[in-house]
Amino acid sequence: MQLYSFFNSSTSYRVRIALALKGLPYDYLPVNIRTGQHREPEYVDGINPSASVPALVDDDFHLSQSPAIMDYLDARHPEPRLIPQDPVHRARVLELANLVGCDIHPVNNMRVLRYLDSVLKVTPEQKDAWYRHWIDEGMAGVERLLARYGHGSYCFGDAPTLADVTLVPQIANALRMGCDLSAYPRAMAIHDHALAHPAFAAAAPSRQPDYIA
Amino acid sequence: MQLYSFFNSSTSYRVRIALALKGLPYDYLPVNIRTGQHREPEYVDGINPSASVPALVDDDFHLSQSPAIMDYLDARHPEPRLIPQDPVHRARVLELANLVGCDIHPVNNMRVLRYLDSVLKVTPEQKDAWYRHWIDEGMAGVERLLARYGHGSYCFGDAPTLADVTLVPQIANALRMGCDLSAYPRAMAIHDHALAHPAFAAAAPSRQPDYIA
Repeated sequence: MQLYSFFNSSTSYRVRIALALKGLPYDYLPVNIRTGQHREPEYVDGINPSASVPALVDDDFHLSQSPAIMDYLDARHPEPRLIPQDPVHRARVLELANLVGCDIHPVNNMRVLRYLDSVLKVTPEQKDAWYRHWIDEGMAGVERLLARYGHGSYCFGDAPTLADVTLVPQIANALRMGCDLSAYPRAMAIHDHALAHPAFAAAAPSRQPDYIA
Repeated sequence: MQLYSFFNSSTSYRVRIALALKGLPYDYLPVNIRTGQHREPEYVDGINPSASVPALVDDDFHLSQSPAIMDYLDARHPEPRLIPQDPVHRARVLELANLVGCDIHPVNNMRVLRYLDSVLKVTPEQKDAWYRHWIDEGMAGVERLLARYGHGSYCFGDAPTLADVTLVPQIANALRMGCDLSAYPRAMAIHDHALAHPAFAAAAPSRQPDYIA
């Protein structure tokens, strides 16, 4: 398999964790989204019509969108399973993963922050307040879900699921942006625990071949 | 089952379509997100810790986040199936649904538009340009995915899947906001075809008990 990835993209980071947890080898193909490589015709026409990272190529099957890629990996390589099969356990995992993936990440990703800068001409303080606002609103929801339904050393049990695979890169982003996450102790304990797992460690931005300090 | 819904919420609209396609009866419980009912302690503590609509209650099982709810409904009530079981077909459906659900919808939802208004004090023209920008960027991706992989009268075949259930409410939002979608003829043909389906029609905002003209 080939993974088109950018070291600092948290959606790429999710898929790298999933591949590492499953022990699947892959070629790492860097796409620099800062310079717009994901929008170049060669990439959009040849690799990924949705003009984004990550994208997975498995023989001649091309797939984008990290939740779809992780679901596909779980179907093709079910051990260890990231999305439980039992409908109720599965629903809890997908609920938390979607809260992060739909309610937090999209509003704070690079393209949105760039629009705030370049089109709306917000001040650095306004951009910072924007970022923290959506982190706080979303992480408060994550923390409430964990208080109500969480158990074990990961979000739901003692093995990582899609919930952890989605949460950890989001927390990494927030920490990089200097957010104070002390109000979310359950989420932070899971994050700290996960970072000690070799698969999460191997997927970290600083460990990727295209890493820029 | 009970569905906590707001007539104009496109994530609620998705779940209403899914329930209607499956022919599942439910109690409609309106939550007015314009007045902040989804943030009231009674709702957050008693119904949905993620403080959002929609939320499904199935006996004593409470679930939020529309993609998780639709996956759960598909597991519990598989006919007709909205998410195919074959890994490749499934991946295509999830890819398109996630492009809409992660790359388009979250950046243009009510809470974000309100922040633009009330905190960043953008002009109506700036807000309108913001809305159209993300619609155009996302819908261009949808249209490219459909051109590459789409077939049949719906996104992927002649029966609706999660891709259609997610796409139609997004297009409804964009049309309501006055966006010109003529550059996306494949997506629009699917939208127009779906609206003639009784399940899509029954789920429309104007047909809900909490509809406000």
